Amino acid sequence: MSEPLTYRQAGVDVAAGGAFAQAIGPLVRSTHTPAVVGHASRFAGLIRPDTTAMTDPLIAATCDGVGTKVLLARSDADLECLGRDLVAMNVNDLLPLGAQPILFLDYLATAKLDAERLTAVVRGIAAACVEAGCALLGGETAEMPDLYGPEGFEHHPDGFGSVPKDMAGFAVGIVDGSRLPDPAAIRPGDPIVGLPSTGVHSNGLSLARRALLDRGGLDLDDHPPSLESSLGATLMTPTAIYVAQVLALADAVGFRSAAHVTGGGLLGRAAQLAPDGLGVRIDPDAYARPSIFGVIAEAGDVSDAEMAATFNMGLGFLAVVAPEAVDGALPDEWTVVGEVTGEPGVDLGYVRR
Amino acid sequence: MSEPLTYRQAGVDVAAGGAFAQAIGPLVRSTHTPAVVGHASRFAGLIRPDTTAMTDPLIAATCDGVGTKVLLARSDADLECLGRDLVAMNVNDLLPLGAQPILFLDYLATAKLDAERLTAVVRGIAAACVEAGCALLGGETAEMPDLYGPEGFEHHPDGFGSVPKDMAGFAVGIVDGSRLPDPAAIRPGDPIVGLPSTGVHSNGLSLARRALLDRGGLDLDDHPPSLESSLGATLMTPTAIYVAQVLALADAVGFRSAAHVTGGGLLGRAAQLAPDGLGVRIDPDAYARPSIFGVIAEAGDVSDAEMAATFNMGLGFLAVVAPEAVDGALPDEWTVVGEVTGEPGVDLGYVRR
Repeated sequence: MSEPLTYRQAGVDVAAGGAFAQAIGPLVRSTHTPAVVGHASRFAGLIRPDTTAMTDPLIAATCDGVGTKVLLARSDADLECLGRDLVAMNVNDLLPLGAQPILFLDYLATAKLDAERLTAVVRGIAAACVEAGCALLGGETAEMPDLYGPEGFEHHPDGFGSVPKDMAGFAVGIVDGSRLPDPAAIRPGDPIVGLPSTGVHSNGLSLARRALLDRGGLDLDDHPPSLESSLGATLMTPTAIYVAQVLALADAVGFRSAAHVTGGGLLGRAAQLAPDGLGVRIDPDAYARPSIFGVIAEAGDVSDAEMAATFNMGLGFLAVVAPEAVDGALPDEWTVVGEVTGEPGVDLGYVRR
Repeated sequence: MSEPLTYRQAGVDVAAGGAFAQAIGPLVRSTHTPAVVGHASRFAGLIRPDTTAMTDPLIAATCDGVGTKVLLARSDADLECLGRDLVAMNVNDLLPLGAQPILFLDYLATAKLDAERLTAVVRGIAAACVEAGCALLGGETAEMPDLYGPEGFEHHPDGFGSVPKDMAGFAVGIVDGSRLPDPAAIRPGDPIVGLPSTGVHSNGLSLARRALLDRGGLDLDDHPPSLESSLGATLMTPTAIYVAQVLALADAVGFRSAAHVTGGGLLGRAAQLAPDGLGVRIDPDAYARPSIFGVIAEAGDVSDAEMAATFNMGLGFLAVVAPEAVDGALPDEWTVVGEVTGEPGVDLGYVRR
C-alpha cells in the first residue's frame, strides 16, 4: 500500500514558497516608494499615484519577457542580470508614451523552487526597480515540475539549468493625457535623437545563440579579440534602463514620437517613429555599434539587413523632437542620430527598407 | 558552404508574430471599454480610469498564472478555458481589496507560434475580460523554440502539446482608498459569506493530475459515476469570475476582509480572513462540495487536511461582513457559510488548523 499523496510529493512545496516570499521581503520593500499603500491582502499590491500635477491622468501598461536569454545564465550575477533585464524591457516600453513607471510585477516560472538562485533574480529586479523609480508591487513564483522538468533543457549544455525556466514582467506607468507625444506634429527634417544600447539587451538572443554557439562553434567562455570580455559576459551585460533620460527629454524639450528598440530591430522600430507618408534616415556614423554585433554577424554569416531587422545595432532608444529642441543643449546622453524624411521607408545608410 | 543565418531559421518568425497580432485584433478590441485611449505605440496600452466618484483613487495590481492546467488542454475549447482561467485567477485576486478591474495583459509562451490555437486562448481571454469589465490592453506572445521545444513535454501523453507552453496574466484595478476593507473592524461573531466555486479552478492541478492520472490510473476520457461529465471536461470547467458579485457586495453592505480561495486552499485562505488573535469557523453543511474533490481524494488517497490545504473545496471566494449585513437581503449568490471566532485558527468542521 502506498502512502497518502500530498501536494509536496506532487512537486509543489507551499511552505518553501512562503519561505521564499519571506526571504525576498527586504528586497521587495527596498523598492517601495512612498506611494505604496500597505494593506492586509498578500495577493495584490496597492499604490497611490501622484497625479496632482496632471490635468488628465492616464494609466499605461505593458508586458514583456526576456526571451531565450534565460538559457545563457550560468551564475548568480547572470541571474541578477536577467532580473534587471526583465524590468528594463518593460519600463522602457512605457517610455514612448512619455509615461513614468510606478509599479512592476514579475512572473517567475520554475521547475523547483531554488530560493538562493531565485533570490539573485529578485535582487536584480529590485535594483532595477529602484533605478527606474517604480515599486516592485508583487509577483508570482510558480513551481511546476511537470511543466518545467529538467528534461526539456538537457539539449542546452551551456545553460545554468535555466533557473528560472521562464520570466515575464508587467509594468504600469502614469502620464498626463495633455502631454502625450503627438506624431501628427512630425515634419520632414525633424531631428531624431538617440540613446546608446549596452549591447544586444534582451532581444534577438535566439539568433545570437544560433549564430555564435551553433554556427560559429564558439563557447560562452571564449573571448573574441574584438570584445572587452568573454562572449558570455558580453551577452550578459544588463539592458539599459532609459527612464531618467527619457523623462528628462520629455521635461526639457518634449518629443513627438519615440521607440524602444527591441523586437524588429533598429530597422523595424525606427520605421515606427514616422507617421504614414514620411520616413526615417539614421546616420551610421552618428552612433557606436557595439562589437558584439560584428561577432554575431561573422559567426552566423548573418546579413546586414537581417542584423538590423533583429538587433538594436547600438541604438537602444530613439525619439523625434522639434527642430528647435536640438539648438539648445539636449539633456545628457542624447545625441542627434538622424532625421525624418519626406520619403517613406527607413534608411540606415548601410541598409534600406 | 551554408546559407546565411536568419532569425526565422533560428525559430523566431517575426512576420508570423505580426500576423497573429493582426488576427486577434478584433478579439482584443471587443474588450475595449470607453476608457481605453488610442495612441501610436504598439508596445504599451493606455487607459483613462474613471475616478470621478473617488476621493482617494488607488491602483491595485496583481499577477498570476494557471499553473499546470496547461498540460490538460486537448482541444480548442480547453484552450479557451485556459484563457478564461488566466483572467479569472487575476481579476479575482484584485477583489479582496474591493478594487474594480480595469485592464488585463497576458504573456503567452510558445515553442512555435500556432496562430489558430493561440487564437482560441485569446478568445477565452477576451470573453473573460468582457465579463470582468476590464480591457485587454496588450500582451506578449513569445516564440521560443529552444526554451519550449517539444522535448520537454513528451512525458505528458495526455496533453495537447501544451499550446501555449506557459501563460501568465496581469490585472490592474482601481479602488477608492476611503472604501478599502478594514480588517481592524472584525469582531468575533461576524458572519462569513461565500460564493461557490465551479470546481478545482486553476489551482492544485499538480496534485490533481498526480492523484487522478498517476496514482488512480484514470484517463481524462474516463467518466467516474459521481461526475456529471468526463474527468477532462470536469477539470476544464472555467474558473468562476467573481467581479460582479463582489462589487455588488461591496456596494450593498461592504465587507471587512475577503479572500479569493486559491493557493493554500480553503484552509490557508480562510485563515487570512481574520486578524491576529481571532479565528474562522466554516460550516461544512453550508456549501456544496463539487464531486471532483471526492474523486481526487479517493484516487490519490489524499487526506482531508491535504485536500483542504490545496483546493477550494467548493468555496471560491469568502468575505467577512458586519452582523447587520446578513439581516437584510445579501446580494444574489452569496450565502452565509461561517463566522469569525474568538479562538485563533481555522475550523472547517472536518479539518482544523
